[in-house]
Amino acid sequence: MALLIRNLSQIATPAGSAPKRGRKLRELVTYEKSVIVVREGRFAYIGPENDIDDAVRETITEDFDARGATAIPGFIDSHTHIPFAGYRESEFNRRLSGETYSDIAASGGGIASTVRATRAASEEELSANVVTRARTMARYGTTTAEAKSGYGLNLEDELKQLRAIRAAGETSPVRLVPTCLAAHDFPPEDKSNAWVERIIDEIIPRVAAEKLAVFCDVFIERGVFTREQGDAVLRAGARAGMTPRVHADELSDTDGASLAASLDAASADHLMHISDAGIAALAASNTVANMLPATSFFLMSDRYAPARKLIDAGAVVSLSTDCNPGTSMTESMQIVMQLATLQMKMTVEESLTAATLHGAYSLRLANETGSIETGKRADLVLLDAPSYFHLVYHFGVNLVRDVLRDGRFVVRGGMYLG
Amino acid sequence: MALLIRNLSQIATPAGSAPKRGRKLRELVTYEKSVIVVREGRFAYIGPENDIDDAVRETITEDFDARGATAIPGFIDSHTHIPFAGYRESEFNRRLSGETYSDIAASGGGIASTVRATRAASEEELSANVVTRARTMARYGTTTAEAKSGYGLNLEDELKQLRAIRAAGETSPVRLVPTCLAAHDFPPEDKSNAWVERIIDEIIPRVAAEKLAVFCDVFIERGVFTREQGDAVLRAGARAGMTPRVHADELSDTDGASLAASLDAASADHLMHISDAGIAALAASNTVANMLPATSFFLMSDRYAPARKLIDAGAVVSLSTDCNPGTSMTESMQIVMQLATLQMKMTVEESLTAATLHGAYSLRLANETGSIETGKRADLVLLDAPSYFHLVYHFGVNLVRDVLRDGRFVVRGGMYLG
Repeated sequence: MALLIRNLSQIATPAGSAPKRGRKLRELVTYEKSVIVVREGRFAYIGPENDIDDAVRETITEDFDARGATAIPGFIDSHTHIPFAGYRESEFNRRLSGETYSDIAASGGGIASTVRATRAASEEELSANVVTRARTMARYGTTTAEAKSGYGLNLEDELKQLRAIRAAGETSPVRLVPTCLAAHDFPPEDKSNAWVERIIDEIIPRVAAEKLAVFCDVFIERGVFTREQGDAVLRAGARAGMTPRVHADELSDTDGASLAASLDAASADHLMHISDAGIAALAASNTVANMLPATSFFLMSDRYAPARKLIDAGAVVSLSTDCNPGTSMTESMQIVMQLATLQMKMTVEESLTAATLHGAYSLRLANETGSIETGKRADLVLLDAPSYFHLVYHFGVNLVRDVLRDGRFVVRGGMYLG
Repeated sequence: MALLIRNLSQIATPAGSAPKRGRKLRELVTYEKSVIVVREGRFAYIGPENDIDDAVRETITEDFDARGATAIPGFIDSHTHIPFAGYRESEFNRRLSGETYSDIAASGGGIASTVRATRAASEEELSANVVTRARTMARYGTTTAEAKSGYGLNLEDELKQLRAIRAAGETSPVRLVPTCLAAHDFPPEDKSNAWVERIIDEIIPRVAAEKLAVFCDVFIERGVFTREQGDAVLRAGARAGMTPRVHADELSDTDGASLAASLDAASADHLMHISDAGIAALAASNTVANMLPATSFFLMSDRYAPARKLIDAGAVVSLSTDCNPGTSMTESMQIVMQLATLQMKMTVEESLTAATLHGAYSLRLANETGSIETGKRADLVLLDAPSYFHLVYHFGVNLVRDVLRDGRFVVRGGMYLG
């Protein structure tokens, strides 16, 4: 009942389950002339074919020819907003003619238009949209993705988004991890602090009662939620059993990273404007600095999260797509790795660990996935490439040929197995 | 014997065959609620289904449901170096640690390593490599690609590369247009002017006699060929019937663009360091300013060709991948359009015309391809997208679902039809 994967050019993976800081982030484990055995959804063996022990060997019932592929762990995309309806191409056009994200938001565009479309959609429609996005993610090598609410902005529509994620999980090729982001913005109809109180008193308890979210997230930003409001929401979420995540220091320095670290949040995300104090706070914590370079790229900003400073200071760094209809309409962790390397000057090794193991760590799944390691879930990507360097070197095209999640093929020969 | 393509969300194309300068570059033709009829390899009709005239209608024998796709012309990639052997990931690593392209070339890396691998390869191997690249190009929507020699750097190996392109043309899904780039560099064994004389006296006549190239190209750059050497090679090529193209002003301003214009070259390519005088010279000429933003991106340079200046001055601009194993290992015109828009601030409309019609114009094929127009060759891409904006908006993933070249499907449902 085991699957033997042969004829690999290379296996490249971070080692183990512990996060890597500083110089250690560059250390990948690579295997040449080796095979992978998958059994009962988990990695049963990694190494030379001749050294497979007999107990494992006699369970092998299937043989897969990887045709010279490079094996890497499935990508972990730990920051997405995929339960949405409606696209926003028109804003994109406005940005091209010089308007900023803030300009567009100030004139009633931006997130408000996605809120309208998402409120108008049924749970079934949202769930179908999540599955559509997840299938594309799978074809690009992602096997686990976080998914946030935050386009409902009232009790019923936030619950609808989270229920849509749960329903999508039944058929999604990607493992989905839900986050309640009711504090994504103020609803158009209520810009007062009453909304913060409603999140704390009504939404969080209800989400917790239905077990709809693992994490609770807040967008701390000038003109959105203050650090104090964010703190209150995240503490309420934590009391209800949801671990904090924080949209921090994206458009300005609001000391969000320090708040995240002080709350022992799972992640502080975006960080384009993080201060040196914020960097030091993350470096001294277990809060992952989650960087989303595709958003800077699409917003035509020269400002990226300071990856080298964060790494050199000793922070645990991860990479995600930020997939959303306004500022980062991409499902591909490959373009994210390319931007991390070519724009943020991370090495390919650093980028790969940030895009796999460290995403799993921030989702509290590092013991289960994020590396190719005996005993972990067999979440595996086979690349049409002779080495993992091609993930950045051979850019702009999808190198993913085959994807297994929990040991089962979800993509084969580039095609989603529906 | 005609094919009806129905259920399109949109058709978006430049109009006609003439190049577009200045503000006119923004003018795309779009059709809603329309169909396309393809007959005998050419577009026979574009417009509302009810208005198809009877003579065309009665020839329709096949019906294709585009499932809401957006139709655009096949991409024209007018600058590639695809007949090569060997990859160069190791240089890429060196650049990540701070070395420049010039540093790497000075220490014996760079093009010299590709020359060694290409010389060592057989014509059959090179031809197979070209077909492999062309299949990927087709999956990403390219239907015509220029292909240069220039890694042989002696008579026999330059001829071998050009013969490999010709042989690949028999099975390539992409129409290939060959260019002799013997003057890509000096061969490692001869850094003297004798090499320039040999190109003029031996290689060009032989290439012309075997009809192996349509164009003749020269890399004019400090430390490579001077403007005077380039001028001599291009004039010799032109006398032998090959239209000039020029690698111009890539790493420094060498007045290459002005030379290209003065010779009525088909294109001046790269142009990251073009002077204002060079811009004015191109604007006053029919020489296409061919911009290759993927190369700047991969070289981690902030310096892109000055697209806005070139467009505003009235130059005809095109976009290409520069696909090559050293500085731009990508086959995707989609990432090129994304970089043109997000990094060079071209609009999506400008980018699309530059990536289609203007490439065809520079390859002297604008009467045959480059737009969706009755009578032109049916080189067509169907995108999994509701509008052409998604080419940039939905970035980092391949939107191409189906591709026809000369009216025949070469890609269907994302898969190459081998």
